[in-house]
Amino acid sequence: MEELKERILRDGKNLGNGILKVDSFVNHQVDPRLMDACGHELARRFAGVGATKILTAEISGIAPALMTAMHLGLPVVYARKTKPVTMTNAVLLTLAPSHTKGVMTELLVAPEYLAGNERILIIDDFLASGATIMGLVRLAQAAGATIVGVGALIEKTFEGGRSALKSLGVPVESLVCITSLEGDKIIFGGCE
Amino acid sequence: MEELKERILRDGKNLGNGILKVDSFVNHQVDPRLMDACGHELARRFAGVGATKILTAEISGIAPALMTAMHLGLPVVYARKTKPVTMTNAVLLTLAPSHTKGVMTELLVAPEYLAGNERILIIDDFLASGATIMGLVRLAQAAGATIVGVGALIEKTFEGGRSALKSLGVPVESLVCITSLEGDKIIFGGCE
Repeated sequence: MEELKERILRDGKNLGNGILKVDSFVNHQVDPRLMDACGHELARRFAGVGATKILTAEISGIAPALMTAMHLGLPVVYARKTKPVTMTNAVLLTLAPSHTKGVMTELLVAPEYLAGNERILIIDDFLASGATIMGLVRLAQAAGATIVGVGALIEKTFEGGRSALKSLGVPVESLVCITSLEGDKIIFGGCE
Repeated sequence: MEELKERILRDGKNLGNGILKVDSFVNHQVDPRLMDACGHELARRFAGVGATKILTAEISGIAPALMTAMHLGLPVVYARKTKPVTMTNAVLLTLAPSHTKGVMTELLVAPEYLAGNERILIIDDFLASGATIMGLVRLAQAAGATIVGVGALIEKTFEGGRSALKSLGVPVESLVCITSLEGDKIIFGGCE
C-alpha cells in the first residue's frame, strides 16, 4: 500500500535493533485518515473470509482494528493487558512478549465477547515475530472460536512471523513488508 | 445523543459504587459505527473552536478520540501510561488517578507531539471527576499549548468533573449525561 510506505519513508525512524518508530502516525500520535485508508484496504482484502468479529491487542492495535471493523461493519474486541474493575468475572488469559517493552504481558479477554461460534479476524499494527498474534490466536481458540485471517499494517519479514502463523492455514495480509532494518535504512520488499 | 443513550440503557451495566460498565460497546468490545456516530457529533460540536490537535489518554479514550479526529481532519495524540522503548527522549509527564483501576497512573506524552502553538481539543470516553482530563490539561499546558475544548461520550454529573474544568473557560460537551447511578438504575439528565 503505497500511501503507508511513503509515510513510513517520510516519518518512520529506524531506531536500530530491528525497531521501527512510527509513533508520529500509528501509535502515540495517530493520523486518522491514514488509519481509515489502511482499514479500508484491510477490509477489502478480508471481505470474503466471513469474519464475525475483529480481535486485536491494546494499545496500538486499536486504531487499525477499529477502522477495519468500521469498514466491515463488525464489532472489534481488544485484549486488555491489565484487568479493569469493570472486568468482574473469569477471563480468558494468555501471556505474550511485548516487543517494544521488553517484558511478558498478559492478554485478557472477557469470555462474553469471544464466543465459540465466532469467526475471528485478527488485526494488529505490526506483524513481527508473530508472538502477540499467536497470543490472540490462543485466546480465540480457548473460546472455541475460529480464526479466519490475520492482517497487519506493517510486517517485518526478517522476524519470521509469517512462518509462525503458517500452521493456522488462514490468509495473512500485511499492507507493507519491510525486509531489512540494517544500519539506519528501511528496506521494503515482497510479503511472501 | 439518543443513539448512545439507548445503547447504554440496553447494554450498559450499573456495577454499583458509581461504576458504569460499557465494555460491550465502548471499551474492550467496541462498536465502530456507534463510535463513528459519536465522533461525528463531537466534531460537529467542536467545529468552531479552531483545534489543531486532539489529545486523549490510552486506552479507552482512543476510539472516540480517533473518530472525532477523523471527522475534524486532525491528528490525535494519546497519552501513554507506560513508556514504550520507541519513546527515547525526555517526556512530558504527570500523574492521574485511574478510576477503574483504583491506582495512580502516569500519563506521558513525547514533547514533539505537543507543541507550544497547538490548540488542543481533549476527548475522552468518560467525564467523571475530571481528574484524568485535568492530567491531560497539565500535559498540554506544560508544553505551552492552549486548551480549546473538552468532550466526552458519557458524563457522570454527580462526580463534579464539569465544575473542576470550569476554570479552563472552554466549552465542555458530553454526548449523554448520567445524573445518578443509585441502586441498579441508570438515570439520565441535563448536562449543566
